[in-house]
Amino acid sequence: QIAKLDIGRENRTGFPEAILAQGKDHDDLLIIINGYCTKKNSNNLLITRLDKNDYNRLKKDLKHLEEKGYNLDYNNKAKILIISNESKNKLSTNYGKIGIITGGTSDIPIAEEAKVIAEQGGAEVLTSYDVGVAGINRLFPQLAKMVKEGVKTIIVCAGMEGALTSVVAGLVDVPVIGVPTSVGYGIGGKGKAALYGMLQSCAPGIAVVNIDNGFGAAVFALTIIKNNK
Amino acid sequence: QIAKLDIGRENRTGFPEAILAQGKDHDDLLIIINGYCTKKNSNNLLITRLDKNDYNRLKKDLKHLEEKGYNLDYNNKAKILIISNESKNKLSTNYGKIGIITGGTSDIPIAEEAKVIAEQGGAEVLTSYDVGVAGINRLFPQLAKMVKEGVKTIIVCAGMEGALTSVVAGLVDVPVIGVPTSVGYGIGGKGKAALYGMLQSCAPGIAVVNIDNGFGAAVFALTIIKNNK
Amino acid sequence: QIAKLDIGRENRTGFPEAILAQGKDHDDLLIIINGYCTKKNSNNLLITRLDKNDYNRLKKDLKHLEEKGYNLDYNNKAKILIISNESKNKLSTNYGKIGIITGGTSDIPIAEEAKVIAEQGGAEVLTSYDVGVAGINRLFPQLAKMVKEGVKTIIVCAGMEGALTSVVAGLVDVPVIGVPTSVGYGIGGKGKAALYGMLQSCAPGIAVVNIDNGFGAAVFALTIIKNNK
Amino acid sequence: QIAKLDIGRENRTGFPEAILAQGKDHDDLLIIINGYCTKKNSNNLLITRLDKNDYNRLKKDLKHLEEKGYNLDYNNKAKILIISNESKNKLSTNYGKIGIITGGTSDIPIAEEAKVIAEQGGAEVLTSYDVGVAGINRLFPQLAKMVKEGVKTIIVCAGMEGALTSVVAGLVDVPVIGVPTSVGYGIGGKGKAALYGMLQSCAPGIAVVNIDNGFGAAVFALTIIKNNK
Amino acid sequence: QIAKLDIGRENRTGFPEAILAQGKDHDDLLIIINGYCTKKNSNNLLITRLDKNDYNRLKKDLKHLEEKGYNLDYNNKAKILIISNESKNKLSTNYGKIGIITGGTSDIPIAEEAKVIAEQGGAEVLTSYDVGVAGINRLFPQLAKMVKEGVKTIIVCAGMEGALTSVVAGLVDVPVIGVPTSVGYGIGGKGKAALYGMLQSCAPGIAVVNIDNGFGAAVFALTIIKNNK
Amino acid sequence: QIAKLDIGRENRTGFPEAILAQGKDHDDLLIIINGYCTKKNSNNLLITRLDKNDYNRLKKDLKHLEEKGYNLDYNNKAKILIISNESKNKLSTNYGKIGIITGGTSDIPIAEEAKVIAEQGGAEVLTSYDVGVAGINRLFPQLAKMVKEGVKTIIVCAGMEGALTSVVAGLVDVPVIGVPTSVGYGIGGKGKAALYGMLQSCAPGIAVVNIDNGFGAAVFALTIIKNNK
Amino acid sequence: QIAKLDIGRENRTGFPEAILAQGKDHDDLLIIINGYCTKKNSNNLLITRLDKNDYNRLKKDLKHLEEKGYNLDYNNKAKILIISNESKNKLSTNYGKIGIITGGTSDIPIAEEAKVIAEQGGAEVLTSYDVGVAGINRLFPQLAKMVKEGVKTIIVCAGMEGALTSVVAGLVDVPVIGVPTSVGYGIGGKGKAALYGMLQSCAPGIAVVNIDNGFGAAVFALTIIKNNK
Amino acid sequence: QIAKLDIGRENRTGFPEAILAQGKDHDDLLIIINGYCTKKNSNNLLITRLDKNDYNRLKKDLKHLEEKGYNLDYNNKAKILIISNESKNKLSTNYGKIGIITGGTSDIPIAEEAKVIAEQGGAEVLTSYDVGVAGINRLFPQLAKMVKEGVKTIIVCAGMEGALTSVVAGLVDVPVIGVPTSVGYGIGGKGKAALYGMLQSCAPGIAVVNIDNGFGAAVFALTIIKNNK
Ligand SMILES: Nc1ncnc2c1ncn2[C@@H]1O[C@H](COP(=O)(O)O)[C@@H](O)[C@H]1O
Ligand SMILES: Nc1ncnc2c1ncn2[C@@H]1O[C@H](COP(=O)(O)O)[C@@H](O)[C@H]1O
Ligand SMILES: Nc1ncnc2c1ncn2[C@@H]1O[C@H](COP(=O)(O)O)[C@@H](O)[C@H]1O
Ligand SMILES: Nc1ncnc2c1ncn2[C@@H]1O[C@H](COP(=O)(O)O)[C@@H](O)[C@H]1O
Ligand SMILES: [Mg+2]
Ligand SMILES: [Mg+2]
Ligand SMILES: [Mg+2]
Ligand SMILES: [Mg+2]
Ligand SMILES: [Mg+2]
Ligand SMILES: [Mg+2]
Ligand SMILES: [Mg+2]
Ligand SMILES: [Mg+2]
Repeated sequence: QIAKLDIGRENRTGFPEAILAQGKDHDDLLIIINGYCTKKNSNNLLITRLDKNDYNRLKKDLKHLEEKGYNLDYNNKAKILIISNESKNKLSTNYGKIGIITGGTSDIPIAEEAKVIAEQGGAEVLTSYDVGVAGINRLFPQLAKMVKEGVKTIIVCAGMEGALTSVVAGLVDVPVIGVPTSVGYGIGGKGKAALYGMLQSCAPGIAVVNIDNGFGAAVFALTIIKNNK
Repeated sequence: QIAKLDIGRENRTGFPEAILAQGKDHDDLLIIINGYCTKKNSNNLLITRLDKNDYNRLKKDLKHLEEKGYNLDYNNKAKILIISNESKNKLSTNYGKIGIITGGTSDIPIAEEAKVIAEQGGAEVLTSYDVGVAGINRLFPQLAKMVKEGVKTIIVCAGMEGALTSVVAGLVDVPVIGVPTSVGYGIGGKGKAALYGMLQSCAPGIAVVNIDNGFGAAVFALTIIKNNK
Repeated sequence: QIAKLDIGRENRTGFPEAILAQGKDHDDLLIIINGYCTKKNSNNLLITRLDKNDYNRLKKDLKHLEEKGYNLDYNNKAKILIISNESKNKLSTNYGKIGIITGGTSDIPIAEEAKVIAEQGGAEVLTSYDVGVAGINRLFPQLAKMVKEGVKTIIVCAGMEGALTSVVAGLVDVPVIGVPTSVGYGIGGKGKAALYGMLQSCAPGIAVVNIDNGFGAAVFALTIIKNNK
Repeated sequence: QIAKLDIGRENRTGFPEAILAQGKDHDDLLIIINGYCTKKNSNNLLITRLDKNDYNRLKKDLKHLEEKGYNLDYNNKAKILIISNESKNKLSTNYGKIGIITGGTSDIPIAEEAKVIAEQGGAEVLTSYDVGVAGINRLFPQLAKMVKEGVKTIIVCAGMEGALTSVVAGLVDVPVIGVPTSVGYGIGGKGKAALYGMLQSCAPGIAVVNIDNGFGAAVFALTIIKNNK
Repeated sequence: QIAKLDIGRENRTGFPEAILAQGKDHDDLLIIINGYCTKKNSNNLLITRLDKNDYNRLKKDLKHLEEKGYNLDYNNKAKILIISNESKNKLSTNYGKIGIITGGTSDIPIAEEAKVIAEQGGAEVLTSYDVGVAGINRLFPQLAKMVKEGVKTIIVCAGMEGALTSVVAGLVDVPVIGVPTSVGYGIGGKGKAALYGMLQSCAPGIAVVNIDNGFGAAVFALTIIKNNK
Repeated sequence: QIAKLDIGRENRTGFPEAILAQGKDHDDLLIIINGYCTKKNSNNLLITRLDKNDYNRLKKDLKHLEEKGYNLDYNNKAKILIISNESKNKLSTNYGKIGIITGGTSDIPIAEEAKVIAEQGGAEVLTSYDVGVAGINRLFPQLAKMVKEGVKTIIVCAGMEGALTSVVAGLVDVPVIGVPTSVGYGIGGKGKAALYGMLQSCAPGIAVVNIDNGFGAAVFALTIIKNNK
Repeated sequence: QIAKLDIGRENRTGFPEAILAQGKDHDDLLIIINGYCTKKNSNNLLITRLDKNDYNRLKKDLKHLEEKGYNLDYNNKAKILIISNESKNKLSTNYGKIGIITGGTSDIPIAEEAKVIAEQGGAEVLTSYDVGVAGINRLFPQLAKMVKEGVKTIIVCAGMEGALTSVVAGLVDVPVIGVPTSVGYGIGGKGKAALYGMLQSCAPGIAVVNIDNGFGAAVFALTIIKNNK
Repeated sequence: QIAKLDIGRENRTGFPEAILAQGKDHDDLLIIINGYCTKKNSNNLLITRLDKNDYNRLKKDLKHLEEKGYNLDYNNKAKILIISNESKNKLSTNYGKIGIITGGTSDIPIAEEAKVIAEQGGAEVLTSYDVGVAGINRLFPQLAKMVKEGVKTIIVCAGMEGALTSVVAGLVDVPVIGVPTSVGYGIGGKGKAALYGMLQSCAPGIAVVNIDNGFGAAVFALTIIKNNK
């Protein structure tokens, strides 16, 4: 009996169901979404990495869902569509606080992706954007505040050389989750320098997810706080 | 006053001090060790990545420490030297349970490095080695047992294609920390395929440290369980 | 006399002729297709990697073929155009069964490319899509069924970390042909992690073709079953 | 019941058990070997990638096995130690013929590794070494002979640019298994050009294993011929 | 006096002047072309890597040149614009014969670039396209003919695994100039496998230029035949 | 007359002559050294990247130089041999102050190489080692002191993720010269992450030299201070 | 008090504020620009890497600034928008001379980016474009003139193999700042060969910034001349 | 009849037979050498890349050859052993002149490898070593002399950034064969920057062989001069 071995699945499926739109065509997405909504689910459905144009096209073909009481909520920065149904779904309870910070303004879309996922998964999220290393003094009071508020883990989204992650990990004692972002051109650009730097960090206490993987960082952060209650 | 900003440092320094022997010569190591032992520390001193030959040479030149009540304990698999002084140091209290599993027998040294660090940092460690993907049925009962015993996070050390990490993350709901090991030859060898695979994992709930960084995985795991009390 | 050395060519040309459209312009394709159809061939002509737009343009300029009894059949998922002529061509006899499975839905186009080629080459194809590693229990019954039905080889199309290939090879004893797909972003994305992982697989019994090369996997599978009669 | 899903395992374990010595220390190897020999196995035990010096050291510590009727047979080219026991093991029956060819003389060790594994797994092996592309006329009669003798698959071991694989696949209609070897210096050296070339081959009908993976090629070839009876 | 050291420049400037259009904008190209045509040159002016659209735009703005007796001749395959003036320029004398062959039809644009440059530089060019390795018997008679006609060097344009270059160099004794082309997808694609393979070739007598550099191959071939008179 | 164009050479040859020992054999080094010492030079001769063993061998074969008044001074950390002759050479005058800092203790050999070269070239050098990012508070007072003392440029030697360079450049306004060091293992190790990070730095005001190139950093720093008088 | 440690910041903020437009959307840019212009700044605001189309869109939405006395000056080659206000800002005083040279005409946009930044930061800039290595005699008189005019540092922008940088550094004694440009196709293209070549240069006295980073080169040059007064 | 197609082989085998010792063990080399010497050959036998120690071991086991009139001549720089037999072999006639130049002293072994091969193949070789780009004035008179003496092609061996090749090709009009050498450390080291730079050269008239392939450059040069008579 495999199900017996699927330890804790019950619990983890408390996460919102997420569909990666990127690489799927319009018709496939429609089938998946309609399929999901005919089943009995207690969670919202999330469509990630969905371009605005693709969302607009979907919206037209999902009119019947709105008529059935579903709500379509598109987050333009995070590129996530949330399909919820108040009568069916109830938002997860609050599992704890997560901090999310970014080095620059170009990292914000990835941070927002993480934020939406984390919130839908039941976290309270504190954010502090554009606090990067070049002006390190902006960072200190922000970090101090987050720690005081009791975040259980901090997600750091940083592109270019990603040094912010090392600096943060040198200052706090909660787990630091590094998300290299695909910001930067030339050698080491598109997140490579940031990823390498986070993996090479001389400040221990950091683990990383792949470049631009705000989704993965949020789910990992949720596993930390959920087991932390 | 910088110290004020070093949020939580007080707590994290509860980790054992670790010196990376690799890349340092004999004389430098002697200076660092002697310097540490003249100071008043509540923790053991750990020398990591120390070859047996280098250890033997150190041992001779550290006779005076043993006379002063210090104990030198060399772990040959983990390649770690623990310098402790019962009168000065007291082992950290138990912060919780960590699981460590490996895909094959060649990953064991990295797992052992993680185990020593985690234990010195105050964790209780459960291990299960050589449970890799090629014979996946070995894995299920081991995982079930760990979860039942209440591990708060699982460190997965795997080389070659590192697929074990994905499989584990698909079965448990605690944070999974991937440690790619430098096992494997040819393209993708020396841990590259394992690292890429863990970062690309289709099973969310994984964050990774660098290839062979058992040390980093253990410190990260400690940040999880310490904030988990 | 070179022809004497071209061992078995006679037999292998039993494969359908395939033209890679990608990288060829419209005029070149017309010349090649018209040239083929004026010759006496016993097989269908396949145009692979043909975009829908390019197909539509070709269709217009190949009207004369349809008048001569040729049939143009475009497979939108596989991106293959099959030009057949019932009076001239007779479908290959059945050489045996091939299984094709995918990790996710994004791998399906590559799997479909393999399926069309394999069928045109005389195989019976069994498919099972979206059975990836993150929910490994979906996989077992599918595999069991394929093996029971007597597939002589299984083609596994998987992107991201491609771990499905290792898991399958650990469960069956027929040759497993890995096709890494260009699914996934960040480091190891676009099929690199999957390719490396399949080449590094700790489960023996796997050989691989290049990223997204559904065509090559199918032709290789055909060489297995044809020599298997 | 997992075992039920381990389709065909029973059959595949007909392969000789193989231990990769590389990366394991002397003591671990002793434990594994002694453990294996106390169990009831119908197959020989193979230790692969074992240096001559390491073999000599093992031989001394395995005297007791020889006393118990075990035979230690070390193949210096293939770097494989075969531990057999005539009273316990009986050689696998013959499943069919496999051809193995190499481009140069430096590829022979990898070819020999494949040969030993294939033979121990129950294949009859035909070899033809040093028939590379620079003097292509050496190749034709060798290939013609292999095909006439009825090989069911051909393993091609080639370093440098690995072009031999493409040439062979253009001439025969059995599955061609490419093994890039780590022969060659400069850019593309150590097997990279050969691997890339085999994956890019314009001649279909090729699948590849990793650089220097003679073991993997042989096991894959065995899955072909075993299902070919 | 630097000019004295510019050995042979006088002679080499016998080559047609070539402007790389790629990376230059419309206005810059106009300035360069007009500047050239106001000077007294004995050679034609060549604009390489010029897209058809860009050519059409240029053509409109160069009407005044055509009125002054200049001829604009655009080669659509080679993507080269030749601006000649019969009253001013006289075609170079014939320096000897160059052979150009390609593996497939997708390599033809690069071969044509080389052909135009070589002809404008005073060579007689013999071509043989689509003679690749997968059907090696197509190659032999073509090569035999070229050698009999007295080519002094052969340019081989080949993508994917580029094995054609090795095969040719194993059969002829004139210098073989390899031009890897950016044909092929997946690992080693876009000319990488071909370049690596040509540099690793086990058949000596090959030197290479960069991927798709038909221009460079032709200029190099011209240096061979010009010093060969 | 080429010499006329060798602008400023006269001045720059004020730098000590440096011979890279690495990659040269014993006999070649002897010839070069003896050749240098028979000429009339106003500078010391420096042999860089000279292993201690090689130095010992050289020392024996250079006895005759010591008899002629030459002094051999070997710096074991910097791996540089300085051959000076008080009667012939006079140390360069002081051109200004250079700061050199390192992230860790493993970076010190590279820093020492830079220090020796800079001092021999006429700089006054201020150093501050092991002030890395993980404990960023160690850094501030050191930097403040250097700036107060009037350094005209700061060389930062850092391995692993090299984040120290960004942090320093964010705090000072003199040119920061980054020297990535080959410290660190796994992906991005051996200086790659540090190099990429320095090139990607979000703090402007940084230029870099190659990994471990303490020599190049020092010569570059000297061009700054020499033109700074 | 962090500010105390921000050594020399006061001075360096004398640089014009620069916003990297690339990777920011229209709305974000508007917010940043409007925010800046409401503050009291003594410098011009620079928007770098701004496409002409994006500039045109911004211009429309910044009409109100022009009404308030701001001047929008877009440099089409450099892709920089300068927003100045004569009543508020006064151009920096002249800190010294900087030379900028390029290998070809395709490197000019990067050189122009450096030129605008340097001038806005208070430098006098001397330029000499298209003096590359293929016709080395064009270079000598240009360099001689720059040195005679007293440039304190030279920025060399070069793509393809970037050899110009080595040649220049071999001829002058001021600091040479290498800017590899993304010119060139095939292996080593897009600036990689140029970057590697500059880092490997056998002529010391060179430090580099990342590919196409004209901005970084200019800021670094400014740190040299500002501390050079 | 294959031989008919092996166009020109007859002629090319005029090249001395060369065996690559690297990667072959002592016993294999003995078998190959003895095999060669029992056949009737008109050329000398060359063993390339043979370490001095390996040569000494071979010499002992080849005593019987010396007794039969064979001469063993080991070139320590080129690492080539020439086995000649005056009674059997006659040195090739002179086909023309080849120039060989190097950037530094570390490139000389590769240049010497090329020299020995070229001379054994019938060329007259002119050399000029250590004329690199950092002191470009050393180069001009050397080149002028070579051209005046009538070299038909020039081999340029250069490591680090390999810029010498571009400079040479900008000054002469004979074919320039680039040999990147594995000189240089850090990014682009071991010949990578030199190879990339030569392939990217803005000076046309260059073709390259692989890193350190002095052998291949010499054979290629021989094909030029042999067809040049
Ligand atoms: N085995 C290890 N792997 C990775 N990092 C380590 C290891 N051991 C110690 N470290 C880290 O390296 C730092 C020591 O660097 P160092 O000052 O050079 O001794 C410590 O602060 C640890 O964070
Ligand atoms: N298609 C081409 N591929 C490579 N190099 C080219 C090509 N066309 C022109 N060139 C070279 O590029 C140089 C032109 O560079 P530019 O001064 O930027 O026009 C010429 O001197 C040629 O050597
Ligand atoms: N440690 C070093 N690292 C990098 N370059 C060096 C070093 N020492 C000397 N050099 C440079 O290498 C050149 C010497 O090369 P060579 O002629 O081969 O001795 C000198 O001109 C120096 O510019
Ligand atoms: N030093 C060398 N570098 C590159 N190729 C070589 C060298 N020496 C010999 N070769 C080539 O390698 C081939 C010998 O390969 P093998 O049959 O393994 O001895 C010869 O045919 C030569 O073309
Ligand atoms: Mg910012
Ligand atoms: Mg195992
Ligand atoms: Mg799925
Ligand atoms: Mg051979
Ligand atoms: Mg073709
Ligand atoms: Mg330290
Ligand atoms: Mg130009
Ligand atoms: Mg030199």
